[in-house]
Amino acid sequence: MILGRDLETCFSPALYEPERHVGSIVVVIDILRATSAICTAFENGAEAIIPVETVTEAKEYKTKGYLVAAERDGYVLDFADFGNSPFNFTPDKVSGQTIVYSTTNGTGIIKIASQAGSIIIGSFLNISALTGWISKQERPVVLFCAGWKNRFNLEDTVCAGAIAERLMATSLYSTKCDSTNAALDLWSAAKNDLSAYIEKTAQRSRLRDKNLDDCIPFCLTMDYTSKIPVIRDGILISMDL
Amino acid sequence: MILGRDLETCFSPALYEPERHVGSIVVVIDILRATSAICTAFENGAEAIIPVETVTEAKEYKTKGYLVAAERDGYVLDFADFGNSPFNFTPDKVSGQTIVYSTTNGTGIIKIASQAGSIIIGSFLNISALTGWISKQERPVVLFCAGWKNRFNLEDTVCAGAIAERLMATSLYSTKCDSTNAALDLWSAAKNDLSAYIEKTAQRSRLRDKNLDDCIPFCLTMDYTSKIPVIRDGILISMDL
Repeated sequence: MILGRDLETCFSPALYEPERHVGSIVVVIDILRATSAICTAFENGAEAIIPVETVTEAKEYKTKGYLVAAERDGYVLDFADFGNSPFNFTPDKVSGQTIVYSTTNGTGIIKIASQAGSIIIGSFLNISALTGWISKQERPVVLFCAGWKNRFNLEDTVCAGAIAERLMATSLYSTKCDSTNAALDLWSAAKNDLSAYIEKTAQRSRLRDKNLDDCIPFCLTMDYTSKIPVIRDGILISMDL
Repeated sequence: MILGRDLETCFSPALYEPERHVGSIVVVIDILRATSAICTAFENGAEAIIPVETVTEAKEYKTKGYLVAAERDGYVLDFADFGNSPFNFTPDKVSGQTIVYSTTNGTGIIKIASQAGSIIIGSFLNISALTGWISKQERPVVLFCAGWKNRFNLEDTVCAGAIAERLMATSLYSTKCDSTNAALDLWSAAKNDLSAYIEKTAQRSRLRDKNLDDCIPFCLTMDYTSKIPVIRDGILISMDL
């Protein structure tokens, strides 16, 4: 019987220690809205997602005929097909498509975590599939919260806590990591009324100010999909389970 | 009536944003054991504390006749007068003295925060004096948790939460900062049995492994002192209230 696989949590790209996590499973969590949008895209039939960092790169892909999701500060870029809300990734638009997804935060995280064993995408939307798959692996896990401009954020932390609670309930995982213990306690504080808890987050206010908050209740939905997006050679595909 | 002064929390030196906090009050929190030891030293009559980073610097001060508190990995350095436990800073040793305190973490933080308006030292030991003084200022505050090797830690975070709770209870302070809201919720989870809560921290285990854990109950004591250590020209003195 295998017990006590290590579970750690990282609250910001600025706190990630690549050398600690060589070979680990890295779960990237950015629930408002990137990782929720990516899970939605695969549920709705997307073939692959190419994360790109700069507007220039996104534009180049557009001229090559790719479908491009790109925003800056909440505004859809003029050449893009749509923005980064999960609601944009409808089956009629994305089924069978390879989508270019412009995200400053996300591509940075993928680079930072490139020495990891696997980089997978987590959100409330795929939490059961995700934790079920992880439980069958025999590797340490780090829950990598994307944060916001390198800052700690609450919404990704409570999602990390929800994932940690499920993994530790299996007795396969244990933790000595203060960040994981904090995430577990914050999830305990949040879970009886998650929507109300998310109201106090800074990202909630930022999205409201830009009229981008319509997708928040959806992003807090558990198990909308059983897809687990995974990075292969810098590109997101749905894991073949 | 002044309302809504900003209250922020920083979980690690790696997350500190100097340009955000120019002119702010920075409260350095490193309760196991540095900031608790510093508060104890002033309560017991110390004149001043000179924080130094390297063993070489500490040694130079020793040859000049200063009292030196210095440890590395929990072992008192052979030339030092005593180690970094609060229990070492007894009145018979420190009263009227200037003490050189060797701390890798602490001096780094003081440098990082050097553009701040004031840098003061916080712990449970001086929480009422500290929050009472802050409430009379009219400046934004950042609660700067020292962490451990740039990592988030729970014990400094719950102390930050306790300080934040008191400041916000005055209605003088408010926060939009996710880290502060997390610290408040973690303090809520911890406060009914703080000793039991601290049991799960990584620093608790580290101190136990080195037999340096005897001071933990003391470090969780509220209001042992009304001294507020403050940095002036790189040296810690007790604030003249």
